[in-house]
Amino acid sequence: MTKHTIILQPSGRRGQADEGASVRTAARALGVDIESICAENATCGKCLILIEEGRFEKYDITSKREHLSPVGAEERAYLERRPKLLKDKGWEIGQVRLSCQCKILGDVLINVPEESRGNKQIVRKSASDRPIEVKPAIRNYFVTLSPPSLERPIADWERLAKGLETSMQLVHGVEAKIPRWREFTIDYRCLQTLAKTLREAAWSVTVSVWNNSEVVAVRAGFHEDSYGAAVDIGSTTVALYLCNLRTGELLAAESEMNPQIVYGEDVMSRIQYSAEHSDGLEKLHKAIISTLNKLLKQAVRSANMSLRAEPQTANTKRSLSELAIASDKEPARHRNDININDILEMVLVGNSTMHHVLLNLSPKDLGHAPFVPTIHKSVDVKARELGLSVNPSGNIHILPTIASFVGADTSAMILAEEPHKQDENWLLIDVGTNAELVLGNRRGLICTSTPTGPALEGAHVEYGMRAAPGAIERVQIDDATLEPKYKVIGVEGWNTERGGLAGRVKGICGSAIIDAVAELFRVGIIDSRGKFKKTLEPASSPKGKRIREGESGWEYVIAWAEETSIGHDIPITQKDVRQIQLAKAALFTAARTLLKHKKLESPDKIILAGGFGSYIDKEKAMLIGLIPDCALENVYAVGNSAGDGARIALLNIEKRNEIDAVARSVERFELPTDPDFQNQFMLATSFPHMSEPFEHIAHLIPNRAPDPMAKNFMK
Amino acid sequence: MTKHTIILQPSGRRGQADEGASVRTAARALGVDIESICAENATCGKCLILIEEGRFEKYDITSKREHLSPVGAEERAYLERRPKLLKDKGWEIGQVRLSCQCKILGDVLINVPEESRGNKQIVRKSASDRPIEVKPAIRNYFVTLSPPSLERPIADWERLAKGLETSMQLVHGVEAKIPRWREFTIDYRCLQTLAKTLREAAWSVTVSVWNNSEVVAVRAGFHEDSYGAAVDIGSTTVALYLCNLRTGELLAAESEMNPQIVYGEDVMSRIQYSAEHSDGLEKLHKAIISTLNKLLKQAVRSANMSLRAEPQTANTKRSLSELAIASDKEPARHRNDININDILEMVLVGNSTMHHVLLNLSPKDLGHAPFVPTIHKSVDVKARELGLSVNPSGNIHILPTIASFVGADTSAMILAEEPHKQDENWLLIDVGTNAELVLGNRRGLICTSTPTGPALEGAHVEYGMRAAPGAIERVQIDDATLEPKYKVIGVEGWNTERGGLAGRVKGICGSAIIDAVAELFRVGIIDSRGKFKKTLEPASSPKGKRIREGESGWEYVIAWAEETSIGHDIPITQKDVRQIQLAKAALFTAARTLLKHKKLESPDKIILAGGFGSYIDKEKAMLIGLIPDCALENVYAVGNSAGDGARIALLNIEKRNEIDAVARSVERFELPTDPDFQNQFMLATSFPHMSEPFEHIAHLIPNRAPDPMAKNFMK
Repeated sequence: MTKHTIILQPSGRRGQADEGASVRTAARALGVDIESICAENATCGKCLILIEEGRFEKYDITSKREHLSPVGAEERAYLERRPKLLKDKGWEIGQVRLSCQCKILGDVLINVPEESRGNKQIVRKSASDRPIEVKPAIRNYFVTLSPPSLERPIADWERLAKGLETSMQLVHGVEAKIPRWREFTIDYRCLQTLAKTLREAAWSVTVSVWNNSEVVAVRAGFHEDSYGAAVDIGSTTVALYLCNLRTGELLAAESEMNPQIVYGEDVMSRIQYSAEHSDGLEKLHKAIISTLNKLLKQAVRSANMSLRAEPQTANTKRSLSELAIASDKEPARHRNDININDILEMVLVGNSTMHHVLLNLSPKDLGHAPFVPTIHKSVDVKARELGLSVNPSGNIHILPTIASFVGADTSAMILAEEPHKQDENWLLIDVGTNAELVLGNRRGLICTSTPTGPALEGAHVEYGMRAAPGAIERVQIDDATLEPKYKVIGVEGWNTERGGLAGRVKGICGSAIIDAVAELFRVGIIDSRGKFKKTLEPASSPKGKRIREGESGWEYVIAWAEETSIGHDIPITQKDVRQIQLAKAALFTAARTLLKHKKLESPDKIILAGGFGSYIDKEKAMLIGLIPDCALENVYAVGNSAGDGARIALLNIEKRNEIDAVARSVERFELPTDPDFQNQFMLATSFPHMSEPFEHIAHLIPNRAPDPMAKNFMK
Repeated sequence: MTKHTIILQPSGRRGQADEGASVRTAARALGVDIESICAENATCGKCLILIEEGRFEKYDITSKREHLSPVGAEERAYLERRPKLLKDKGWEIGQVRLSCQCKILGDVLINVPEESRGNKQIVRKSASDRPIEVKPAIRNYFVTLSPPSLERPIADWERLAKGLETSMQLVHGVEAKIPRWREFTIDYRCLQTLAKTLREAAWSVTVSVWNNSEVVAVRAGFHEDSYGAAVDIGSTTVALYLCNLRTGELLAAESEMNPQIVYGEDVMSRIQYSAEHSDGLEKLHKAIISTLNKLLKQAVRSANMSLRAEPQTANTKRSLSELAIASDKEPARHRNDININDILEMVLVGNSTMHHVLLNLSPKDLGHAPFVPTIHKSVDVKARELGLSVNPSGNIHILPTIASFVGADTSAMILAEEPHKQDENWLLIDVGTNAELVLGNRRGLICTSTPTGPALEGAHVEYGMRAAPGAIERVQIDDATLEPKYKVIGVEGWNTERGGLAGRVKGICGSAIIDAVAELFRVGIIDSRGKFKKTLEPASSPKGKRIREGESGWEYVIAWAEETSIGHDIPITQKDVRQIQLAKAALFTAARTLLKHKKLESPDKIILAGGFGSYIDKEKAMLIGLIPDCALENVYAVGNSAGDGARIALLNIEKRNEIDAVARSVERFELPTDPDFQNQFMLATSFPHMSEPFEHIAHLIPNRAPDPMAKNFMK
C-alpha cells in the first residue's frame, strides 16, 4: 500500500500514513488524538484541522490540496454553516478541513488547533503545578439510527446499543477497547424514556456513556457537552464546582454555610445529635441534600449567566464547534443553556462524619472507641437514591475514607497534592477544628488527626470571628513603640495608611490571631511560655494603654473601641494566647509524632491546605511553632485542596482507582498510642518550642531564657 | 502424604483422600458436594453424614470410629442440642457426624443423606420431565467477625467483606472461583443498616450474596434460607410462586385476576388506554404492582400457615438443620416464619405489553407498525425501583422479550420446554386471546404469533364463559340419537349419570366449545365447512328439538333451560361455529406457515402450554383442525409453562444467560409477509382442513365430500 508522510503540528509528530486513510485516523495512529463526537458524520465539527503552509520533502505548495481528498458535499455544507468562524479566524474552506473527512493522498503538514485536540488537560495551582488530564467517566456519542421497519423490528435498546458500538469505534478507532453492543447496559430510569426520545429525535441522539459501559442519558439531537459537579462538604462550609466534563473547564463555583451547624458546631456534637434524636440523622441528611440542591441550582444559573453575558469570549475560550449548534447568529446562545438535568455526575468529599451523613449512614460509631466508619472504599450511588436534583441516572461518587477522623476530604487532599508520587517527604496539613496530617512519599504515607479546637479559626477567642468583612486579618507590632497596625477584610491597605478605620472593625479572625500572638512574642510582650510580661510603663503612657490588666488578666489592645463597629476595644488576652498555645501544641505534636514514626527530623515540604492555610503568614506560623521548622520557601499554601481533589476525581476517572488504592495503603496512626505524646505536647506549648531549634526563623526569636516570673505554666 | 480410601454413598463415588482432610473436603474433591453455610464452624449442621456399616478392603468394622478423628467438643455440643433428631432417626453420636469436623485417619465408607447433599434438584412435569438443578443467584453465608478494636479499627464493610471471602472459601473450597474481598460490592440500602446489624448481632451474621458478587442482605445470626418469587403476569391472571431459594421447594402458589382488566380486556385495548390517557401507563403500572404486593403478602401468609400446621413434615421434608435454630422444642417453629423482607429475588414473565407496563415503559410502540418493544434483553432492576414490597435491595429479573407479540412469557415457555435442546422438531403453542407459536430444534427456533380471538377461551360465544364452576367443560354427542351428554366444572361425572343437573349449568367454556363443534362435525350435524345441515326430522321429535332454527340461524341445544341457573336453553349456534372456525384457522395457518418455513410436513411433538391446553381434548382439537396432524401420544399439555419457566430462571441463574442467548437467536416470522397466507387461511377454515389429510384422526372424519347445499361459505 502506498504510504505518505504526515507531520502534525504543534506536537511535531511525524510518521507514515496509508494512502486513503483519514487525517484523523492517521493522526491517532501517531498518538495525536483529535476530538470527535459525531462518529465521523461531518456534523460535530470538533475535528477541525488546518492544512499548513510548510516546506518539506516532496511537498508541493502549489497543489497542496491535491495531497488530500477534495472537500466533499457534507464537509462543505458543515463549513458553510459557519461563516463567522471562518471570517474571525481568517480561514478559507479547503485550508480548514474536517479531519474525519479528508483522506491522505500525498505528504501533508497539518496543524491541529488547541480546540480540536483530544486528551484535554487542566492545570491547577499546587505545590507541584501538575496538569490534570481530562478523562471523564461520562463521554458523549452522537448516534444516528435507521428507524425500525417491519423487516427489522429490533427493539429500541438493542438498536441503540448497536449504533453506539459503531459510533464508539469510529470515535476511538477499532483498535480501542470498546465493549460489544451486548455488553452495554442502560440505567433503568433512562430506559423508561428511551422510546419517546428516539422517536422525538427522529432517531438521531446523543448518548452519554458512563465508565465505558452504562448508558445514563439519551438526548435528542447533538449535544457535545455534559456537566459534572465536584463538592467539598466541610463541617462549616460547602463548596461546589460546576465543570464541563469534556473540556474540564470550571464554569461556576458556589458555596454555602453547612446548614447542619444548627445541629452542632463541630462533628462530635452532630454525631451526638444524630445519636440522641430518632430523626437526628434524617434531619442532618436532608439538610445537606437540600443545600447541595440549592448550590447546584445556583451554579447552573451562574454558569448560564456568564455564558450569555460573554458569548464571544465563551465561544473562543470553549470550543469552535459549539458554534455549529448556536449557529453564527447571536443571541442564539440561549439554546446552549446548561440544564440541571445535563449534570450527569458528581464527586463529593468531606470528613468521615460529613461522608456518613451525606450517605444517610449513621455516624454514631465514628464518635466512640474504637472509632469505626461504616465503609472505607469509595461509594458509587445513583443520584436518585440520594435525592440529588441532577439527572436521576447520574452517578454520585464519594471518595474513600481513611479512618474515623481522616475522611474523604483527606483522600481528596492526597489526590490533589500527590505525596504518594514524590521522592521527598511531604507533610500535608489540613487545618480546621480538627487537623488532619499526612506525611510520607512514594514509599508510604502515614496519617493522623488531632483536635486543634476552634481557636485557629477565630472562634473561642475573646473577639474572634470567622474570616468575613470587618475582620482584622493581619497584625504587625512596632518593635520600638509596641503600636500595632492591622489590615481588615474588605478594606485595602493597613489601617495606618488610611488614617484610621473608624467604625469598620468587627473582630479578629484566625490568621490575625496567629499574627498577633507571633508579634507579641517577637517584640517581647509575651514570653516563650506565652505569659504576658507585666509592663513597667505608666498606665497612661501609650505602651501602658496598649498592654493593660483587663477583666480577666493581662491583654494587648489591637483596636480601640472607636475604630470598631461594636463599641468595644479589641484586645488579645492572656486566655486567647493560651488557646492558641493549646491548638498549636496539638498540631505540632501530631506532626512531630508522624516525623518520629518515619524517623525524619523535618519534612522536605509542608503543604497547608484549606482556606486557613492560604491566609496565614507562614513565617509567623513557624515563629509560634504551629508548623515544624522548614525552609520557608518549602512551605506552600494550596487553598481548598479537598475541593481540588474532588474536581480531579470528577474529571479523571482513573484518579478514582488511584486514590482508592492509596487510601487503602495509608497507615493510620493514633496519637494517644504514642508513649511520648503527653511529654511532647507539653514541650510544644512553648513559643516556638521548648526543645527544638527552629533554625529557619531563629533570627526572629527573642532571648530564649524562660522568664523567671512565669513559674506556673498554664496555671 | 498418607492416603486413605473414601467411599461415598449413595453415589458410590470412591477415591483417595489425604490423611487429616475433613470428610467434607475429601468428598468435594471427589465431586460430591455436601452443603454448609456456617463456614465449618460446627453450627449450621447442614453437612451431617452417617458413618456407614460396610465391608471393604482394610476396613475394620470393630474400630471404625478410629478411622476418623474423634467427636470434638463443638461437634458434640451441636449434636447434643438435637436429641429429637437423633431419636427420630435412631442415630447415635459418633455414627452421625458433621462432615466439616471429622478428619480422615483411615479408610471410610460414608453415607451422605439427601438433606446434606449439595446441588439440589427439583423435578417438574413437562414433555421431557427434566430435573432442574437448583443454582440460585442468592446464596447465604454465615460469617463471624472479630469486633473492631483501637488496634484494628477497620471499617464495617471491609471487615465484613474479608470475613465473607474466608467463609466462601470454606464453603466452596479454595479452588472455587471466589471473588477477592475487594471485589465484593454491597447494595446501598443494605449498607445503610450494616453498622447497626453487625453490632446488634454481636458480629455474627448471615450474608446473602447475589450472583457471587453483591451483598444484598445482612441478617443477625444464622439463617439458612432465603426466598424468591416467580411470577407469570398474564393479561387475565397473575400467578405467583413462592420458593425456597436453597432447596428449590415450592412453598406457596397464589393467583389473582389481573386488575388491568378494568382498563381493557386484551392487550391492544390496554395499549390504547395508556396512549390515550396521560396517566394511563401510571394507572396500569400501579395496578399490577399493587396486585403483586398483595400476592406476595398472601404467599408469605400461606407458606407460614402450612409451615406451622405441619412442623414435622415440614422439618423432615425441608432440612435437618433448621431444627438447629428452632431447637427441638415445639412450637418454636414460629421463629422460622418467612418474612417478606427475606424474599431476596423475583423473576417475572409476561407478554410484551405486560412486560412493558410492569417496567413502567410505555407500550405505545408495541401497538402499531412496525411493532417495536423498548428492549429485548432481560432486565435486572432493584425491587425498590419498582415499588415491590420484598427486600428493597432484592433483584428483580425480567426475562427477555422476543418480539412485540412474542414476549417474556414465550421466553419462559422455551426455557421450560427446551425445544432448543432437541433433535426432534417441536411445536410449542401457547393459546390465549393471542396464540404464540415456537417451532424448531437445536439447530434453530422460529416463532410467530396470531390473534385467535377470545372464542377459544369461551368469550364472544353466545353462551360462552370462562372456566369456572357451572361451566360445561366436556360435551359428547351420541351418534345415533344425537343426544348430548356433558360435564360441568364443580360437579363429578356426566350429567346423564346424575339424572340431570337441574339449575347447575351457567354456560359453556372453551374446552367444551371445541368438544361440541368437533362432535357436531363428527356426527354429521355440521359439514366440513362448518354449516349446519338442515334436519329433516320433525320439529317435535327429539332430534328436531335439539337441532333447530333459532333467532340467529340454526343451532344445537346442549342444555335445556331447566338444567341451567340462567333460565335459557344453552345452544351452540352457527355463529359460534364460525367463531371457532376463524380462531382455529388462524392458529393452524400460523403453525403451517412455520412448518413450511422450516420445510417440515408436521412437527415431531406438539406442546400445548397454558391453562387452555391442559383442558382441551387433544383428539377433538385435532378433529376440528385446531392443531396440525400428529400422533396423539406426541401431543402434550404442559400447563402453565411460562410460570414454570419463571420458576426455573428463579432457581437457576445459569438458565438466565441461556434464555437470553436463545431468545436473541429465535427467528421472528411475520405471518402477513407470507404470500400464501390468505389462501392457507381459507383452506384452514374447513374441518379439519380443506387439503390436509389428518391421518391420525382420519377414522373420525365423516364423508369428506363438501355438502352441495353449502355454496356460500361463511355467509
